Amino acid sequence: MANKVVIIGGGAAGIDVLELLLRGRRNSGPKIEINLLKREKDGFFSMCGMPFALQGLYSMNVLNLFEPEFYIDKGIDFRTLIEVKSIDLENRYVHLDSNEKIHYDYLVIATGSKPFIPPIEGTNLEGVYTLGSSKDGELLEAAITAKELKNGIIIGSGWIGLQTAVAFTERGIKTRIVEKIPHILPNLLDPDMASIIKKNMENDMTFLLGMAVDAIKGRKDVESVTVGGEEFPADVVLISAGMRPNVDIASKAGIKIGESGGIVTDLAMRVKKGNCYLDNVYALGDCVEVIDAITYRPRLSQLASTALIQARVVANNILGIRSSFGPCLSPSVSNISDLQLGSVGVTTEMAIRYGIPIKIGKAIKQTKARYFPERKTIIAKLIFEAFREKLIGAQIISEVAVAERINELTLGIKTGITARDILMRERCFDPSLTTVEDVIVGAAINAFGN
Amino acid sequence: MANKVVIIGGGAAGIDVLELLLRGRRNSGPKIEINLLKREKDGFFSMCGMPFALQGLYSMNVLNLFEPEFYIDKGIDFRTLIEVKSIDLENRYVHLDSNEKIHYDYLVIATGSKPFIPPIEGTNLEGVYTLGSSKDGELLEAAITAKELKNGIIIGSGWIGLQTAVAFTERGIKTRIVEKIPHILPNLLDPDMASIIKKNMENDMTFLLGMAVDAIKGRKDVESVTVGGEEFPADVVLISAGMRPNVDIASKAGIKIGESGGIVTDLAMRVKKGNCYLDNVYALGDCVEVIDAITYRPRLSQLASTALIQARVVANNILGIRSSFGPCLSPSVSNISDLQLGSVGVTTEMAIRYGIPIKIGKAIKQTKARYFPERKTIIAKLIFEAFREKLIGAQIISEVAVAERINELTLGIKTGITARDILMRERCFDPSLTTVEDVIVGAAINAFGN
Repeated sequence: MANKVVIIGGGAAGIDVLELLLRGRRNSGPKIEINLLKREKDGFFSMCGMPFALQGLYSMNVLNLFEPEFYIDKGIDFRTLIEVKSIDLENRYVHLDSNEKIHYDYLVIATGSKPFIPPIEGTNLEGVYTLGSSKDGELLEAAITAKELKNGIIIGSGWIGLQTAVAFTERGIKTRIVEKIPHILPNLLDPDMASIIKKNMENDMTFLLGMAVDAIKGRKDVESVTVGGEEFPADVVLISAGMRPNVDIASKAGIKIGESGGIVTDLAMRVKKGNCYLDNVYALGDCVEVIDAITYRPRLSQLASTALIQARVVANNILGIRSSFGPCLSPSVSNISDLQLGSVGVTTEMAIRYGIPIKIGKAIKQTKARYFPERKTIIAKLIFEAFREKLIGAQIISEVAVAERINELTLGIKTGITARDILMRERCFDPSLTTVEDVIVGAAINAFGN
Repeated sequence: MANKVVIIGGGAAGIDVLELLLRGRRNSGPKIEINLLKREKDGFFSMCGMPFALQGLYSMNVLNLFEPEFYIDKGIDFRTLIEVKSIDLENRYVHLDSNEKIHYDYLVIATGSKPFIPPIEGTNLEGVYTLGSSKDGELLEAAITAKELKNGIIIGSGWIGLQTAVAFTERGIKTRIVEKIPHILPNLLDPDMASIIKKNMENDMTFLLGMAVDAIKGRKDVESVTVGGEEFPADVVLISAGMRPNVDIASKAGIKIGESGGIVTDLAMRVKKGNCYLDNVYALGDCVEVIDAITYRPRLSQLASTALIQARVVANNILGIRSSFGPCLSPSVSNISDLQLGSVGVTTEMAIRYGIPIKIGKAIKQTKARYFPERKTIIAKLIFEAFREKLIGAQIISEVAVAERINELTLGIKTGITARDILMRERCFDPSLTTVEDVIVGAAINAFGN
């Protein structure tokens, strides 16, 4: 008899597991039946693409990559607009809000995350938005296209906030970004690197850094936002102050939630109840916590790229190919106002907070030979563990080729690369594409000397 | 007393050693005096930039990065237009053509390479060029700018030949490329990958593959080239059929030359005489042979990027920081007719020739999310050792971001990455910059399944 896999959640994590199970089934894997239960109306919607739709690069509906029928036609019991009420771990059932009970042999919890709403007044006023779902995106897109808005406030300066700030300004909205930390992108960049991104944006918008939002004000519609005692007019507000794991039904079922707020799993991505990891219940994506590969402490890694690897582990394990997930570096890259910024491993602040002695090297170079036209400036900051000289963090900013360098350095950190390894490693060279001594090499030299 | 370092050769390798010694001296290294002896008239000339100058992107003289005075002002005895006649290893002297004798404590042989001239008639006719020095570049630039040439022949289909073919066609010259192997770029790409580059070029020029040049004909000026019995008109010919190490003075001094034709060195880059590696005589760059990191057999690695790492080893050793050079992967990248092609490790042909069982994975993907505008096609071919599933070679073609992926894969090969490692590795994702499943991951999946 076929095994029944029930996936709760149809964001990137849930869909990845679904597609990998389908791929495995095609390749003569074991017989499985798959049931996917999701709260939203879409088949597969790419959330990461929402800020660019708001910027007008394409309309929000191109992000609907697949309709539910696409999966239904493949024989999946794919159900949308469904709320899972509870999980019965003992009897292997999920209970739906319709009171239906669905049996599972394997359960995959991919419940994702929701925007954090700060505990202040006025967050429920009209004109206050978040970006946690396709519906959120459609509502905000409709708002900024329908009427001419004058004043926008962005609460939080992560990449979603900044990319949306760009969208606001491109539609003529006077935009202010409020961030309680004294610099933008605090989880990704050191203050000196963040200031490059800020400088590139501040002609078009205003930054209120190191300041907290006191209240959002208005009668029915939002009218203003009070920040550090001062009142700023606002007819549109985006709250982008981080995402919180959706763990309610897992928690209610007795599944252990970690100190980061995410579901605890073992290396096979199996959830924990009491003292045991459960054989047949997996969790992944934005709703789980990971172990950091530098600090070895739990944290969240709410990235589509992390979800994909976790999905491979979950799908493999269900298909009988035993796999495990290692500690997490969470490399990330963003494209904000035509500057690409990438980050992997720890920032200086995180290294210090976790007691790691560090040595830093920074370099500014060009992307092509000095005589070559159309070269771009590229800035790299490398953070090394001071005693062993091993790379533990990297930040890169340029108009080009940041993502690929972050991928290289992610592999470097993972394989224990040292500053000297970086100097002595082979790199390819063509004057129209690279420099013979890359900015990464320059940063390593500046950290330890040649 | 200061140690006297004599560097023979002022190409990339010699200049790199010079600059690294200067850097080390500044950083309170030991006292050294430096003498650089070069045959050419320039201070530092970037040879790799020549084909792009021929294409008209800039004039040849911008490649004169530094005049000799730049180094003389730093206290270097920097001599141009000097020929070294012989080396007296016993008494530690080099003899110049002026009959001057210069003593050394450390000798650095960086004599570079010269274009291979096939043993056929007519190679010395007017209008037959090579690209082995700044002077060669200036002569060819003058020729194709001065008069309107009609028919060009390129002998050899390496990157220099192909980039120069583009330069010819951009100046309206009807161009034919002759290659004795049945596909272009035989040292870098497999036939299927090379055909993509060829297809991108063949609207503008003609390829005569798997065919040898019989003769170059003309009275004073070149008039035609005979290929496989057929005669083709030609008023300009470039011989770009590989570079041969300049080893005459080393060989005459009794220094061992390897089976590849390059100078043999140990891991500290010291040359060999009899059964001993000499303590104070180093060689590097195009004139030495390296050990291949996949086949462990000697070969040439005539790349500016290889020279830079060897220069670090040589300079460090002279400065008293003991360093060694490992086996060589020779990652390389080129930019031909707006397609970037990168290669590292072995090709399929090389793997088979050296008895390595292989498994191949190839993938074609986009560089950005499927809904994102301005994405480009990218093609990756990965070659794995079949038994251990370790990556041993990679070839990538796209309009963008090839160099950086080759750098990442170079590190991957070096650190023993397997196909499964590639699937389970973290990569960064932003829909405007990358895809969530990169072409590299796709190729690994196609080699071994997910």
